[in-house]
Amino acid sequence: MAQLSEEELSGIYDFTVQLAKDAGRLLLDGAKSRMGDDGMPSLDTVEKDSSVDVVTKIDEDVEAFVKNSILFLGEETYSKGATREYLVDDLPTWVVDPLDGTVNYTHIFPMFCISIGFVFQGEPIIGVIYAPMLNQLFSSCRGRGAWLNDTTRLPLLRNPIPPLPDNAPKGCIFSCEWGKDRRDAPDGNLVRKVESFMNMACELGGRGGKGGMVHGVRSLGSAALDLAYIAMGSFDIWWEGGCWEWDVAAGFAIVREAGGIITTANPPGAPETDVIGKAPLGGRLYLAVRPAGPSTTETGRQAQERTVREVWKRVVKLDYSRP
Amino acid sequence: MAQLSEEELSGIYDFTVQLAKDAGRLLLDGAKSRMGDDGMPSLDTVEKDSSVDVVTKIDEDVEAFVKNSILFLGEETYSKGATREYLVDDLPTWVVDPLDGTVNYTHIFPMFCISIGFVFQGEPIIGVIYAPMLNQLFSSCRGRGAWLNDTTRLPLLRNPIPPLPDNAPKGCIFSCEWGKDRRDAPDGNLVRKVESFMNMACELGGRGGKGGMVHGVRSLGSAALDLAYIAMGSFDIWWEGGCWEWDVAAGFAIVREAGGIITTANPPGAPETDVIGKAPLGGRLYLAVRPAGPSTTETGRQAQERTVREVWKRVVKLDYSRP
Repeated sequence: MAQLSEEELSGIYDFTVQLAKDAGRLLLDGAKSRMGDDGMPSLDTVEKDSSVDVVTKIDEDVEAFVKNSILFLGEETYSKGATREYLVDDLPTWVVDPLDGTVNYTHIFPMFCISIGFVFQGEPIIGVIYAPMLNQLFSSCRGRGAWLNDTTRLPLLRNPIPPLPDNAPKGCIFSCEWGKDRRDAPDGNLVRKVESFMNMACELGGRGGKGGMVHGVRSLGSAALDLAYIAMGSFDIWWEGGCWEWDVAAGFAIVREAGGIITTANPPGAPETDVIGKAPLGGRLYLAVRPAGPSTTETGRQAQERTVREVWKRVVKLDYSRP
Repeated sequence: MAQLSEEELSGIYDFTVQLAKDAGRLLLDGAKSRMGDDGMPSLDTVEKDSSVDVVTKIDEDVEAFVKNSILFLGEETYSKGATREYLVDDLPTWVVDPLDGTVNYTHIFPMFCISIGFVFQGEPIIGVIYAPMLNQLFSSCRGRGAWLNDTTRLPLLRNPIPPLPDNAPKGCIFSCEWGKDRRDAPDGNLVRKVESFMNMACELGGRGGKGGMVHGVRSLGSAALDLAYIAMGSFDIWWEGGCWEWDVAAGFAIVREAGGIITTANPPGAPETDVIGKAPLGGRLYLAVRPAGPSTTETGRQAQERTVREVWKRVVKLDYSRP
């Protein structure tokens, strides 16, 4: 498959959207089966097993469902937990997280979703993220825009798309996650992250000049939905390390199709001047900036790059690698 | 009005739910009018004015709508911004935030809502929180339970209601907000909050024994919705200082009716043994713990109190007062 025709692309896109809807329904059914009221009897197993086991089972069920569905298409597939090796090559590959936001799902906090990315020649070109309890489906197909619930184009504000604030990160919503690495060590990722969050949040001039006075700090517990809200224009900046390609493949496709950019979380040697490249899909370090319209003095891309550099000046390098 | 009959209560409850639905629709219309696609022309004013002005206008419009509606009932009303004095007395009083999650609304991140509390003899006895872009309406009436979208009883998991983890805060979703006080001062609320967040998040044994290893840290940017998700059982712990009674009045009613508790954020002199009282509605310091079922060794209330004490051991006193 050297190239994909527009017709093939359409077929794969429609298939992916439907697959996400079906898989999302499984997730929602799983959540509802744990509730007690309204004709939805709770499963005995829920009371006997730990909620973690229940979630693992749903996760595996949805993964099996997705894999079986994709088998018909005959592409390579891999998803969360299969391996820590980076397996994406030039062949068409599905990169799937059957359940992103696992902790949220355990607690039935609605910020959970299925995330399906279709990667071709190393680039995510189709992405679908479906959060069934929010009734929000985010999707994109290369060259055809990014969409909310099939009908509303992303970003939501697009007439015109608002420019980024002149003094970003001030005025921005900054999205970030605390993650699983909670070691109490000066060089641990928890300390590095929180120092970075503090710099972004603190008043201008504070923290030795690093204070960014962002408008708000948000943590949802789902990398896929963080990226969806970047594409929507709801979050201005997402900075994160530690997640994997299955968490972000669909989000990469959706954010880029909406006009956002994703580069690496870790500042390079010369954050003021180094080239701002695309984040490697499997790099575990991500910095996304929302779609931005032009102002009177700069293009949207220039404003995005300015914002990236302002973030890089304020954050500490994170320490995540692949095994 | 010395007492309220069940009939009067029903009338006020139905009125409040309808009022929240109507007001929420105004919020949603306001958001949609700023989007450009799908037959929803963007307002010229949006491009001319800053988004802050636009939001202020919506906020005022919705407040006027709510006030006009409530005037028919002839009760006292006050809401956000009217004054910083605490005005709730024994008379029936409406405590309203026409738009909670203002920053989210500005950015069209769906975590915004209208919050309407009906306070009688100093106690919030009816609460309605409506997040129109999430299509989630949380409501409660004294003695009649707390509900999601009129039909699903809260908390969501209730057959049985899960106990709190034995080793809480480990295993808990911890919800917290960064707030507006961003001073770079050792005794500022930003530093106090972040130190507390770090203690809650850090591995067990870390931070001089204060590490709580919570399952996840969440920040939504809406106190009303934080409390709604406590009532739902999605968040286990919410710890916050700085917000006002209009942010929490409806949430107080809903959380308590669902079986959760709300006490003060600031640890007392003897966090291990001091009586755990109700948080004053206007105290600006709140610690909420979700509804909890019994385990084999303790009642739900005992587990909630144990959790409160474990939080108090880990957090720093916040510095918020009334003018």
